[in-house]
Amino acid sequence: MSPADVERQESWLSQEDLATVRGRMPILYVEAVPVRVAADGSVTAVGLLLRASDNGRIQRELVSGRVLFHERIRDALLRHIEKDLGAMALPQIPPSPVPFTVAEYFPTPGITAFHDSRQHAVALAFIVPVAGDCAPQQDALDLAWLTPQQAADPAIIADMDGGHGVLLRHALAHLGHAI
Amino acid sequence: MSPADVERQESWLSQEDLATVRGRMPILYVEAVPVRVAADGSVTAVGLLLRASDNGRIQRELVSGRVLFHERIRDALLRHIEKDLGAMALPQIPPSPVPFTVAEYFPTPGITAFHDSRQHAVALAFIVPVAGDCAPQQDALDLAWLTPQQAADPAIIADMDGGHGVLLRHALAHLGHAI
Amino acid sequence: MSPADVERQESWLSQEDLATVRGRMPILYVEAVPVRVAADGSVTAVGLLLRASDNGRIQRELVSGRVLFHERIRDALLRHIEKDLGAMALPQIPPSPVPFTVAEYFPTPGITAFHDSRQHAVALAFIVPVAGDCAPQQDALDLAWLTPQQAADPAIIADMDGGHGVLLRHALAHLGHAI
Amino acid sequence: MSPADVERQESWLSQEDLATVRGRMPILYVEAVPVRVAADGSVTAVGLLLRASDNGRIQRELVSGRVLFHERIRDALLRHIEKDLGAMALPQIPPSPVPFTVAEYFPTPGITAFHDSRQHAVALAFIVPVAGDCAPQQDALDLAWLTPQQAADPAIIADMDGGHGVLLRHALAHLGHAI
Repeated sequence: MSPADVERQESWLSQEDLATVRGRMPILYVEAVPVRVAADGSVTAVGLLLRASDNGRIQRELVSGRVLFHERIRDALLRHIEKDLGAMALPQIPPSPVPFTVAEYFPTPGITAFHDSRQHAVALAFIVPVAGDCAPQQDALDLAWLTPQQAADPAIIADMDGGHGVLLRHALAHLGHAI
Repeated sequence: MSPADVERQESWLSQEDLATVRGRMPILYVEAVPVRVAADGSVTAVGLLLRASDNGRIQRELVSGRVLFHERIRDALLRHIEKDLGAMALPQIPPSPVPFTVAEYFPTPGITAFHDSRQHAVALAFIVPVAGDCAPQQDALDLAWLTPQQAADPAIIADMDGGHGVLLRHALAHLGHAI
Repeated sequence: MSPADVERQESWLSQEDLATVRGRMPILYVEAVPVRVAADGSVTAVGLLLRASDNGRIQRELVSGRVLFHERIRDALLRHIEKDLGAMALPQIPPSPVPFTVAEYFPTPGITAFHDSRQHAVALAFIVPVAGDCAPQQDALDLAWLTPQQAADPAIIADMDGGHGVLLRHALAHLGHAI
Repeated sequence: MSPADVERQESWLSQEDLATVRGRMPILYVEAVPVRVAADGSVTAVGLLLRASDNGRIQRELVSGRVLFHERIRDALLRHIEKDLGAMALPQIPPSPVPFTVAEYFPTPGITAFHDSRQHAVALAFIVPVAGDCAPQQDALDLAWLTPQQAADPAIIADMDGGHGVLLRHALAHLGHAI
């Protein structure tokens, strides 16, 4: 789907419509854990976005966003990574459609490890090596690169909302790191 | 979610609303490949539903259905398996939320190996051992148990619409069988 | 392979031969995380073996053991689970040969999160629901069932040697639990 | 492990010793399916090595080789890819240690879909995108790049021995391709 198609697509579903749908259906998301890798594929750093939350607190976040109508999962991943990390990030989108985990965000806390007060979202999560220059876009204040050991620190997890900290730990586990 | 809740939930989204949403968002599905297993976990048979299609042709199908608002994936799997195979099927729902594949059904043929003229559906697919008595429900004519070798037969695949045959082969591949 | 075959097999590789091979080749292992599951497949408890270590300390362990010559991975899993949990455990061996993780134990600490002073072992790790009665066998003092929340406690992990605690956390992550 | 270490390592296990061990233990292997990918991660081509077999027949093969003592799986993957495709292949070794399948090769045919008359080998199989120039090395006659559709052709599979054709189809299935 070209950017123009995406534009048109978005307009098909007005903010009002989206609000209505959000109360009636699970919404499909993709999430990406951006990583830097060595030549042997081992992860040397994990990228976290820093954003100011509504209440002014600085939060760490993963790349995340909705899958649009008629958009493939790999195209949604690519679009959201470019949107958050810039057009020069050179992400290596995984060749397989199998996510390393599926995160189920419920508006009611406690049903799963994930929570989103706005909606019931189901996110397919992927680890995505990025080889190029990353620059935080839009409302992101910064992009921080942490070693896997730093990323596994409970203090980092505490800075992440809605279960993003749990998702980060799940990614580190899938990578074989001590957590 | 209790059956009563599901009932209520369904009523929240009228057929008309669903038709509108279907043209605007990807719809989240679960699909199950029911299998019989030996004590060592090896698959001895794969279950396929036989249904009469709109044009009167007999088709083989996998268990498949929509995930509802505020429904966990594992609850949706359980609900659709009971709906199709009966309440005594005793399915062993996988403990992990990671599907063996993700099938992307597009209304336009040829974008992926999967096609659904009604909608853009994204299905999380699971292999589900069933230990109890299975009885085809509702509009299903029969439930056929095939050996993995029989299920891998190209003639079987040709009887399955929209890419269900491809999904069945992906399941056999994930199980380690020759295909 | 019948138990008699296994016996014969073991005799083919004397303790002396095994010691020699251990210094020269990676040894293939399987590891199982025994779990109790609800009807919806969600994990309600994780089973840990309690053993007295050589220095008299009580340690928590997962089910673990070598794959023998001409033995399938699923047969090795079944054999080691019966050896550790008894013949009535009724394990549900996963139908797919794909492990949830691969743990690489090196005799040198620090290369991976896993360490085994005796050898270089590569373990394929599986989550295995057990439906029957489990009784600790041989040198195990007890089998403790912990909730996933209890199992995620850092104090539990500290009681596990060689990286078994990390492996347990990786299993909880794969299951979608907060860790 | 440096190349010199590998050299030394190999010398630790003489050809005679290896022959002895091969009749007594499963031998750990890695296998790689080399692929070319587009910017969206979708696979555009699969690489197959052409080798003359002992009986003079031309065979198609995947990258495959033994894991050495004290060698990580990712290092073994890198070493065998460089050995078969050359030093300029620029492989993107997967960041996670989880293989897409585990192929169990038995000296006795028919136990699994895989067969190796020399030994009982257990191979962890990975899909590996290669971004650089590939040149067949050593005894390989050529490296052929096929589209996923061409690679799924039953005639191609028939040219591959010991179950490599099945492994290739399992890889295509994991990638979501029609097979």
